[in-house]
Amino acid sequence: MKLQELQQLDRDDPLRNYRSLFHLPEGVIYLDGNSLGPAPKEVFQKMEKVLHQEWAEDLIRSWNNAGWWELTDRLGSMVAKLIGADDDEVVVCDTTSVNLHKVLHAALSLKSGRNKVIAEADCFPSDLYVLEGVKSLRPDLEILLEGRDGSSIHEMLDEQVAAVLINHVDYRSGTIRDMENLTRQVQEFGGLTVWDLSHSAGIFPVQLNRCRVDFAVGCTYKYLNGGPGAPAYLYAASRHHTACNQPLSGWFGHARPFDFERHFDPDSGIRRFVCGTQPILSLRALQSGLEIYQDVSLQQVREKSMALTDLFIKLLKNECAAWELEIISPEDASQRGSQVAVSHPQGYAVMQALISRGVIGDFRAPNLMRFGFAPLFLSYQDIHDAVKQLKQILESKEWNQEAFLQKSKVT
Amino acid sequence: MKLQELQQLDRDDPLRNYRSLFHLPEGVIYLDGNSLGPAPKEVFQKMEKVLHQEWAEDLIRSWNNAGWWELTDRLGSMVAKLIGADDDEVVVCDTTSVNLHKVLHAALSLKSGRNKVIAEADCFPSDLYVLEGVKSLRPDLEILLEGRDGSSIHEMLDEQVAAVLINHVDYRSGTIRDMENLTRQVQEFGGLTVWDLSHSAGIFPVQLNRCRVDFAVGCTYKYLNGGPGAPAYLYAASRHHTACNQPLSGWFGHARPFDFERHFDPDSGIRRFVCGTQPILSLRALQSGLEIYQDVSLQQVREKSMALTDLFIKLLKNECAAWELEIISPEDASQRGSQVAVSHPQGYAVMQALISRGVIGDFRAPNLMRFGFAPLFLSYQDIHDAVKQLKQILESKEWNQEAFLQKSKVT
Repeated sequence: MKLQELQQLDRDDPLRNYRSLFHLPEGVIYLDGNSLGPAPKEVFQKMEKVLHQEWAEDLIRSWNNAGWWELTDRLGSMVAKLIGADDDEVVVCDTTSVNLHKVLHAALSLKSGRNKVIAEADCFPSDLYVLEGVKSLRPDLEILLEGRDGSSIHEMLDEQVAAVLINHVDYRSGTIRDMENLTRQVQEFGGLTVWDLSHSAGIFPVQLNRCRVDFAVGCTYKYLNGGPGAPAYLYAASRHHTACNQPLSGWFGHARPFDFERHFDPDSGIRRFVCGTQPILSLRALQSGLEIYQDVSLQQVREKSMALTDLFIKLLKNECAAWELEIISPEDASQRGSQVAVSHPQGYAVMQALISRGVIGDFRAPNLMRFGFAPLFLSYQDIHDAVKQLKQILESKEWNQEAFLQKSKVT
Repeated sequence: MKLQELQQLDRDDPLRNYRSLFHLPEGVIYLDGNSLGPAPKEVFQKMEKVLHQEWAEDLIRSWNNAGWWELTDRLGSMVAKLIGADDDEVVVCDTTSVNLHKVLHAALSLKSGRNKVIAEADCFPSDLYVLEGVKSLRPDLEILLEGRDGSSIHEMLDEQVAAVLINHVDYRSGTIRDMENLTRQVQEFGGLTVWDLSHSAGIFPVQLNRCRVDFAVGCTYKYLNGGPGAPAYLYAASRHHTACNQPLSGWFGHARPFDFERHFDPDSGIRRFVCGTQPILSLRALQSGLEIYQDVSLQQVREKSMALTDLFIKLLKNECAAWELEIISPEDASQRGSQVAVSHPQGYAVMQALISRGVIGDFRAPNLMRFGFAPLFLSYQDIHDAVKQLKQILESKEWNQEAFLQKSKVT
């Protein structure tokens, strides 16, 4: 595909105006929006207001007057729109891992006669760490991993399975799991599903209610552009709210927090999943990221996402076939999230060389370069330019330098 | 005491220069630093750098280059200085309540043959909610409350007690508990202590190591001026690090988080108490609050705190004896934190009237007005002026207006 054709695609792109809402550094092609999204320009003004007016001037009064108290719910309903949930089924608070602890215990509390949880061996490792933590408090629990203890979730299901934890989009390969079918299969055996939406929300329409999902969690600092370490979200289907026990109890989850009662009487709705006082500065920054999404067509996002990743794969094949690259992501766009993983024996060093040229992706051990394609701010020409840089690096073996080979802590 | 004498005290105050480091709104006397501390002026510049440079320009690279990855530990060691702990015994992350869940489970894991936990019936209610949550996962656990199931912790101790949770300073009355003696008593029975330092850290020297405290948690948005909902801290004595199980496991607590292993191998040190990715914007703002404290003499803070609260009580007695005020806090300054609680049958309305005149304190049900005295930014004259306003309100019954009587959500 010629550069001119790509430029025409950019001119015709129905999402083209969103790019100007983000701060994108000069000379950078940012293919890491799936790791830390860029800053919405509006966040600078918002945070100035939050710092100078809400905190510094209005002080404690802002809990009422600036709506701090409701932020967890208000942002929750903004996320709900993106994941096919009702307004009162999503709350924004804490971290993805802490929220996963909550919903796993909540799911187990609803299935007290059952003692198995299934997850994917290749899910995001922190999800496995959370499961180990849950098991440390529930020694009877058996954790079964798809890909280690059985070849598919479907064949591992039985009537002892309380819950199945599934990553909607694989954090490395980008493979999409079938939410509707898997949820139905699990529920046919009387189990509950817990979905991790960290790599799916914001890049295609997620339909939690239509699929009758029980619980979900996800991260807001990737495609949702909420800022570094922005608080996570938690979804619980309303049919489970009152029946489940969420053991990370705290005053923000009390039905009457300002009555200072001794006994914990959880809020009857989604707020029971909040524990302590939330980091307001980080929540307010996240609000800027979510505001951008409120009028976005996720269908258009999905179409552009498939086109961008298809283009990247096609250009890699055309331009970089001479080197030891292997595309790990599904070749069929309908099976793939908005990322493409490519292995190379020196993947770490190649990625460092790319970064030094302003093409920022990330690396996942042992040898995967991971490229994320956030349709709100990337152009077709960006993809063309990124592959051109990659080709030059491979051609010249520019990656083979001490500075690129030496690993730093965070990648 | 005459106003002139107080003004002389202000001129002689060794802490007088700290006031200028904070943004204090015009016309406000802020007696609520124990609820939400004011903004350090430096935070405005810092956050501009964090937003424009670290996030917007440097993006994902800031995890390495701006030290985001180490913030939990770096801020932890800044808190450690204030609470008499070693650098590697404190970490800043999550919320006070979530951290309390962690350390209570950790304490129980170290005392697996024991099934009792003691707390104070009048401790901050969220601490009781946390205990209920812990018990929901440990049905064998017996929770005993001092003031309900026995008259003193000391008499309730036996060899079934795994842990005792104590609020260092009572959130309402300001009464200080004796850390050294209580810890020794608990340990004589082989139990562990968990201290909540939310109302003590930053207003007098806390000596965790000298008192051989096992675990502690605390809040940073009060006297430490970390910003609304700033992340909390967690202390674990180094002797417990490797032996305890902290069940809120997550990738930030892994020994090798970027190796993406399937099995959770916790960090050998304090970092095992971190779970998921932390809210960087809120952490960086907190850093400004902690930086101010790094060269403060906590002994001087304590002396001024006692003088300010003594002055407030004395002026109340001299000026406001005609009305139905009752001082709930200990009259002996050595028994009292940096707050004074005063009951009035219409405490809520009186506080609203005070706030409308710019004297900001807070209210705790059913009838307590709570005044906090943060020595870094309050002057002796502030106390004089605040009591003058209170007297006028009581004298004129100005509080008896619809606008003041009607309760809002957060107080």
